[in-house]
Amino acid sequence: MAAPGAVERLSRRPLDAVLEVRRAVRTLLADSACAAPLRSGRVYVAVSGGADSLALAEAAAHVGRRRDLTVGALVVDHGLQPGSAEVAARAAERARNLGVATATVLPVAVSGPGGPEAAARRARYAALRDHAGPGSLVLLGHTRDDQAETVLLGLGRGSGSRSLAGMRPLDPPWARPLLDVPRSVTSAACVELGVSPWDDPHNADPRFRRVRVRHEVLPLLEDVLAGGVSAALARTARQLREDCDALDAVAADVARRAEVGRDLSVAALAGVPPAVRRRVLRTWLLGAGVGDLSDAHLRSVDALVGRWRGQGGVFLPGGAEVSRAHDKLTLNRRQPTTRGS
Amino acid sequence: MAAPGAVERLSRRPLDAVLEVRRAVRTLLADSACAAPLRSGRVYVAVSGGADSLALAEAAAHVGRRRDLTVGALVVDHGLQPGSAEVAARAAERARNLGVATATVLPVAVSGPGGPEAAARRARYAALRDHAGPGSLVLLGHTRDDQAETVLLGLGRGSGSRSLAGMRPLDPPWARPLLDVPRSVTSAACVELGVSPWDDPHNADPRFRRVRVRHEVLPLLEDVLAGGVSAALARTARQLREDCDALDAVAADVARRAEVGRDLSVAALAGVPPAVRRRVLRTWLLGAGVGDLSDAHLRSVDALVGRWRGQGGVFLPGGAEVSRAHDKLTLNRRQPTTRGS
Repeated sequence: MAAPGAVERLSRRPLDAVLEVRRAVRTLLADSACAAPLRSGRVYVAVSGGADSLALAEAAAHVGRRRDLTVGALVVDHGLQPGSAEVAARAAERARNLGVATATVLPVAVSGPGGPEAAARRARYAALRDHAGPGSLVLLGHTRDDQAETVLLGLGRGSGSRSLAGMRPLDPPWARPLLDVPRSVTSAACVELGVSPWDDPHNADPRFRRVRVRHEVLPLLEDVLAGGVSAALARTARQLREDCDALDAVAADVARRAEVGRDLSVAALAGVPPAVRRRVLRTWLLGAGVGDLSDAHLRSVDALVGRWRGQGGVFLPGGAEVSRAHDKLTLNRRQPTTRGS
Repeated sequence: MAAPGAVERLSRRPLDAVLEVRRAVRTLLADSACAAPLRSGRVYVAVSGGADSLALAEAAAHVGRRRDLTVGALVVDHGLQPGSAEVAARAAERARNLGVATATVLPVAVSGPGGPEAAARRARYAALRDHAGPGSLVLLGHTRDDQAETVLLGLGRGSGSRSLAGMRPLDPPWARPLLDVPRSVTSAACVELGVSPWDDPHNADPRFRRVRVRHEVLPLLEDVLAGGVSAALARTARQLREDCDALDAVAADVARRAEVGRDLSVAALAGVPPAVRRRVLRTWLLGAGVGDLSDAHLRSVDALVGRWRGQGGVFLPGGAEVSRAHDKLTLNRRQPTTRGS
């Protein structure tokens, strides 16, 4: 199946890249959170026909066979380009050739708010989730380079670790085994497998932010910072994700101690680091249905605890107001007409 | 002192920018950590002659006068360019004209490892610290744009929040009141003050990474991400700094419970989130003189707690080894010759 000439040009041992992709799949599936979907046998791999998803499909099929597990490929046809049905059919056929048991094309209708990129993503994830069903696992081919791009795209949001933490490797039904595997490896795997991946023309369209991050920002950063940027960004995303999880766990502990009915005890929040306190406040407010919270909102509410000088209530989106009295924080809903009054 | 024509061109009210810089200085000096240096009266401002530090010098002198506080300017002459002594003398004169009580030129010798940028920075900070003396405060003119550049330069390191947290506003003797003030405001302040700042030719030299981040990476990111990137990066740095502080505080609590003589109790670490645990381990190892710790080292040591399967000790730089026995982590020093054996 391998194409020896190409492999020699890359000066790798044959199947080195294929083995690396398989290893990544095996490692993720060993996570205890995968046990139930693996038992149920509902494991799918999302295939676009690009190098990442084809390499992933082969690895998933291979690992599946060793575990007596039937892996199905799911190909979403967004219907956005002429000939998209043929592209989808060809991707399904290639996935079958690479060993998956079944390959199903899911045609979707792309519409709704937020630009074509966002609408296509929404339609794709919905179709995959619906077809896979509850308790299933859907493997996605996002690589280390995709993760780096996601982190850079998050820089513009400026909401701290939440915007830089990138994609999670495991967020059922989604599983992303390749977040530590460079795109160069999935490309090499396709060469080794003798399969020609499809080049999505969207991947070269500079109207998409992600495309510009990939083709302009990352290469410039690699040049200026002297290399290793994608790996560093992926490493950073992982650490920030873990930091976030740790702070969320600490905040959940604090929240349990601080909750007094529907209020929060100021005494239970007082000695707590501000970053934890703001997480407690955020969860409390979101739980009460107050959305659209900015960092500035949370800092204002937090000042009722950390910089208390007897100030009045803090107004929040949707006519909500948090005030402090009797050493408790209380949330009140006001009529929208009196908001900001 | 203002140059009305220029001010009108910027369509600002006269002294708007000057007032913003002064407000930033006043806000930082209100921090309780500044109380002692303010009482001692040892407050300095580092002046290069550029727009940032001249605007800062005026603001510090102004705020100082209102508080009966003598503010001295310190100008470091790195002696790296012909005529650097004249540049320094002119910067000192401009600072005096802007109201500082004294302006002292500190000639330094730049040498040592790590490239000219790093050597100059080392020499500069050492001279400022030595001249200012213990218990003093040295105001530095780093702006929001400098902070954004620092965050981007940190991306390449990939050590999580620690590398992206940027510069601290207050880290005595250093104080950076302008970390939320854009460079455009310090430039506008100089226009309003009628003072011509010095343009350091190093600021245009593409051999310096920071210069390329400023002139190439940030403008590209601004374009691709549709604006607001510097503000977002500075906001992110602040949040990551606070996250870091919170995790360090939680880790210090855990460490107190976990320490058993020179060992660490595994039971006290077991239920703790991994990101906190790695911080406890890092502090414990650094305290025992084990340096050069990578994220991979800390994850290996952490596996003795979180993924215990009876494995052997973990080898660390400098011939150190951490092993687990009797539900404790123990650090042993080995002879360098037996390292890795």
